[in-house]
Amino acid sequence: MLQASPDAADAATRPRIAIEAVTPTVDGGRFPVKTVVARSVTVEADVFADGHEVLRADVLWRGPNEQEFRREPMTFLLNDRWRAAFTPEQIGRHDLAIEAWWDEFGTFRRDLTKKREAGLDVALETDEGLHLLEEAAANAPADLARALSDIILKTRALDTKARVEALLSPETHAAAVAADPHHFASRTELYPVDVERREAGFASWYELFPRSESGDPTKHGTFRDVIKRLPMIRDMGFDVLYFPPIHPIGITNRKGPNNTLTPGPSDVGSPYAIGDETGGHDAIHSELGSLDDFRALVKAAVDHDLEIALDFAIQCSPDHPWLKEHPGWFKWRPDGSMKYAENPPKKYQDIVNVDFYGPDAIPGLWQALRDVVLFWIDQGVTIFRVDNPHTKPLPFWEWMIGDVRARHPEAMFLSEAFTRPKVMYRLAKVGYSQSYTYFTWRNQKYELMEYLTELSTTAPKDFFRPNFFVNTPDINPFFLQTSGRAGFLIRAALATTLSGLWGMYSGFEICESAPLPGKEEYLDSEKFQIRTRNWNQPGNIVQEITRLNRIRRENPALQSHLDVHFHNCFDDAVLYFSKSRTAADGAGIEDMILVFISLDPHDEKHAPYELPLWEFGLPDGATVQVEDLMRGNSFTLTGKSQWIYLNPNELPFHVWRVTRPAGVA
Amino acid sequence: MLQASPDAADAATRPRIAIEAVTPTVDGGRFPVKTVVARSVTVEADVFADGHEVLRADVLWRGPNEQEFRREPMTFLLNDRWRAAFTPEQIGRHDLAIEAWWDEFGTFRRDLTKKREAGLDVALETDEGLHLLEEAAANAPADLARALSDIILKTRALDTKARVEALLSPETHAAAVAADPHHFASRTELYPVDVERREAGFASWYELFPRSESGDPTKHGTFRDVIKRLPMIRDMGFDVLYFPPIHPIGITNRKGPNNTLTPGPSDVGSPYAIGDETGGHDAIHSELGSLDDFRALVKAAVDHDLEIALDFAIQCSPDHPWLKEHPGWFKWRPDGSMKYAENPPKKYQDIVNVDFYGPDAIPGLWQALRDVVLFWIDQGVTIFRVDNPHTKPLPFWEWMIGDVRARHPEAMFLSEAFTRPKVMYRLAKVGYSQSYTYFTWRNQKYELMEYLTELSTTAPKDFFRPNFFVNTPDINPFFLQTSGRAGFLIRAALATTLSGLWGMYSGFEICESAPLPGKEEYLDSEKFQIRTRNWNQPGNIVQEITRLNRIRRENPALQSHLDVHFHNCFDDAVLYFSKSRTAADGAGIEDMILVFISLDPHDEKHAPYELPLWEFGLPDGATVQVEDLMRGNSFTLTGKSQWIYLNPNELPFHVWRVTRPAGVA
Repeated sequence: MLQASPDAADAATRPRIAIEAVTPTVDGGRFPVKTVVARSVTVEADVFADGHEVLRADVLWRGPNEQEFRREPMTFLLNDRWRAAFTPEQIGRHDLAIEAWWDEFGTFRRDLTKKREAGLDVALETDEGLHLLEEAAANAPADLARALSDIILKTRALDTKARVEALLSPETHAAAVAADPHHFASRTELYPVDVERREAGFASWYELFPRSESGDPTKHGTFRDVIKRLPMIRDMGFDVLYFPPIHPIGITNRKGPNNTLTPGPSDVGSPYAIGDETGGHDAIHSELGSLDDFRALVKAAVDHDLEIALDFAIQCSPDHPWLKEHPGWFKWRPDGSMKYAENPPKKYQDIVNVDFYGPDAIPGLWQALRDVVLFWIDQGVTIFRVDNPHTKPLPFWEWMIGDVRARHPEAMFLSEAFTRPKVMYRLAKVGYSQSYTYFTWRNQKYELMEYLTELSTTAPKDFFRPNFFVNTPDINPFFLQTSGRAGFLIRAALATTLSGLWGMYSGFEICESAPLPGKEEYLDSEKFQIRTRNWNQPGNIVQEITRLNRIRRENPALQSHLDVHFHNCFDDAVLYFSKSRTAADGAGIEDMILVFISLDPHDEKHAPYELPLWEFGLPDGATVQVEDLMRGNSFTLTGKSQWIYLNPNELPFHVWRVTRPAGVA
Repeated sequence: MLQASPDAADAATRPRIAIEAVTPTVDGGRFPVKTVVARSVTVEADVFADGHEVLRADVLWRGPNEQEFRREPMTFLLNDRWRAAFTPEQIGRHDLAIEAWWDEFGTFRRDLTKKREAGLDVALETDEGLHLLEEAAANAPADLARALSDIILKTRALDTKARVEALLSPETHAAAVAADPHHFASRTELYPVDVERREAGFASWYELFPRSESGDPTKHGTFRDVIKRLPMIRDMGFDVLYFPPIHPIGITNRKGPNNTLTPGPSDVGSPYAIGDETGGHDAIHSELGSLDDFRALVKAAVDHDLEIALDFAIQCSPDHPWLKEHPGWFKWRPDGSMKYAENPPKKYQDIVNVDFYGPDAIPGLWQALRDVVLFWIDQGVTIFRVDNPHTKPLPFWEWMIGDVRARHPEAMFLSEAFTRPKVMYRLAKVGYSQSYTYFTWRNQKYELMEYLTELSTTAPKDFFRPNFFVNTPDINPFFLQTSGRAGFLIRAALATTLSGLWGMYSGFEICESAPLPGKEEYLDSEKFQIRTRNWNQPGNIVQEITRLNRIRRENPALQSHLDVHFHNCFDDAVLYFSKSRTAADGAGIEDMILVFISLDPHDEKHAPYELPLWEFGLPDGATVQVEDLMRGNSFTLTGKSQWIYLNPNELPFHVWRVTRPAGVA
């Protein structure tokens, strides 16, 4: 072997106790585990050593700016696996480690107990126990050393039988544990844990184009118009109000309605073509209002218990000031021209990309982009939906998000990366709090079960938070184009009950679905023109969305995609699952949300299913109380085998709360 | 967050291309992957980056004492997964890494091809391609730079259409690949791979007590007697001949027959009570012969194509010279006595343990133990079966085995740790080439399937090599105590066909099974007395063992526990599996070993099973040629559904070779 071997003295300093398979961790600690504040984090590890000594282990953890670790004693489970939990109380980067050591006095207690039970002479053993206590006392703080010395003195004076009792007494045990010198202590590296605010994991998003809010299709909407919409959005139960870019829009190659290349003089263009001669990413499109108007909107949103999220889209219109000010931030072709952006098969003739490794881009461009985010944070915005992050370098995101969140740990970034799974997961690892997902294209029962199982039980469960959008300005799902109103109810029910994070783009609540023919895009897309709508038009699903958002708010089990359990409903078009809350007294499941969703917007379903009585520890013939959370009525169900009825013309889903009967553990 | 953020310039130097989930690796590279020389190692990784550029990746590897890496280009599989293989040619510690980079000219070729197909004007693109070649030439060695300059000069003189052809030509492609500047190259850490000789993974072990080899129970056997046994052992097809300790045996607390505490004056004691006043671990028990006799035996073994393995048992008899010479290597009780060894519930009153962290133990004891191993290597022994390694510190093993194997990479250690699975696996990680297993206690079909699936498909497959012993001097399995001859055939068939490594302790071939009543131990155990046997006694299974060992030697598929596939045989007492060899031409399976083993030594079995025709790509009604490797006859089978017959009074197992019919891929 090439490596020089250490000498024996070096080797003897290496950890005698093995600590393996620590969970949760991400890529062995290369990236942080994600969690939210005030939620318990369960830590496990394999802890073992040579020989038969009793071991003990602690989880060590500390919050941001803390030097000292707190300790949570780990409990032995089975097969060398240990567990403990802790609950972070503040947001920001935490450290986690595990320490394990020989519990020498514990080993002594165990062996002495066995020998006493076997009736052996243990006079010599009691001497050995006293020696252990003396050693502990020698290294203990003064108070403890004094207490131990008292114990030693009293015990030494006794006969063997009484000595044994004294050595095995709770008092001696407590003193020995407190003074335990942690022989052969071994400690893992530090594993990072990123603790975010609650909205990182649980929030309902509403997206609108401010310029459409005037109520008049010929009149450009303003931030003041948006303020008037806030009560309606809040009444539906949304938490986050997200806008596409609000910056000046370029003139060069401006797009016309329906993504045409020949705009008329009054066409507004795509807000993603950011920048004109008046400014770029830190400027506001003048027709929306002033920076003061924007600040007023941010404040009004807060007053309505809403939070504004902005779009961070790094591309530039050819008129963006950066092209002239910083030509070295862009990639030029041999003839002095520049390629427009593409996200195959989509073409963005009105947009050019920056070159992150261009001749003058480092560090200028990277810092400028970071400063754009910091600018909007200064205006009161801390949630950013990031456009196409998978076409920008991963090290940029890791640095930028890390730097911003080191200053503002409340900041959150949503990744709009519709790309290959490993790229999407890596973006989450490098810092994104949330991500768009494949949910929009998962319509079959087996697809939804597979995807949710992947998200909630495999590696991504520790770092990837899905935000289930039912539609976006770019995605008019084929399913909704032919499903009618029932399909909108189905998709709303799926998103709101499967994921802690969900979102909709305005128009969904009135079941808008007219497509650009043959495409998964909207006809007369708001990306290229102003649209106005009648929010109260017949057939809207505002009431149902409102109810679903309220059910989410009232039932913690629905505030995450984790811990979903699929159950047997014997119909391939009925998705059936539960999410549960565990009783604080450790007595198992307290109450359970049961969800049935027909995936068929056209035909009614009548299907047999199994009521999971066993999850409550109940026999197959038991009776439980059920509350229908959508309809508000209650009833009882008796027995495991049941039938469900779902009618697309009324409500193609049920959300029930099943409560553990009183007196059943 | 507590951590200081790097500045943007630092961040921009970080890897742009992600390389994740490298396999095989053990604990993220903390421990080496194990393999054997001349066997292909398949390496995979997730490789991806932002954007849509074409990537390329190489596996980098080097052997011991090599500075330069060799490269194997990786192939893209699916879903960002890449693969390559390499075949190490020497034993010792190897390094493995993966490098990935932007293939800029490849990206250019891809995009140019698409645009040409779309009929677009690509004049400017050809300029860009030439710029790329110029950049490559500027950084290339002189020869290559000249070739590239020629290409550039010729291509520039052409019109656009001809330029495109030249830029897409194989000649240009080859030059561009050769001169590829590896932009944005990203490289993983080095992962260790431990390459061992073939016997680390494939060998048949035979264990005997040399002192029993005189043929006369009243006469102590010698190494010269063992030499006479070598032809018989070799004829049975064994590779390794392993002895329990051959050192002087202590007198103090010597054990009598059947583990009694009152020996007579002529009792020989347990060879595990190592050391008397004549010497310890580097001495030879005088009744066995001299060191010269031992060397003669080692040489005779080599002449018979056998290899001697010794027992490395770290414990000492109370008479071992170390107790006087190095009292600081032991743990003494307050009254000056010493505890005897225990491996609950077993008690070893004739043995005391060293204290690895005793007052004078570091580095003296550690080095002395290492030197014992080096001493026996100097006598020609390089295989060590280690007694109870799980009761000695893991860092000691990692250091000692690493140090010995750095000097003698051919050395191998077999771990005799019958303990909890994670401890057994960790011993393999820290350096053991092979390990005893739970095989001895797995008698049911589901148990065997579960255990083999764990060993061959989960993490241990990369570092843990099972050695399936059918019995040991310490283990007289309950199954064999009542099974009769058929049970011995069953266990021999299981061990020889399921694992590349198997072993037996002498007596197994004549179906010895008399127990200490109620215990899993042998009556009149050779551990405490001399035993002689008639190797030709009626009912012996020497012929069957000989045949099985020959089948193993002739069929590479049987030389590892990996790649076992269990098939459907519809009888819970019939284990049915295949191991296959893949055709060198990549055309799938060439031939397949099919094994049926009845687990019932008493009743005959007649059970339906599925012939895995699909593994050869054959339809359910196909006909294949079958060779019965135990009986030597051949026959054909037609159709997927078949019946198997197994008779415990004749042979309770079948080993067949099924050959891919000629002309079928």
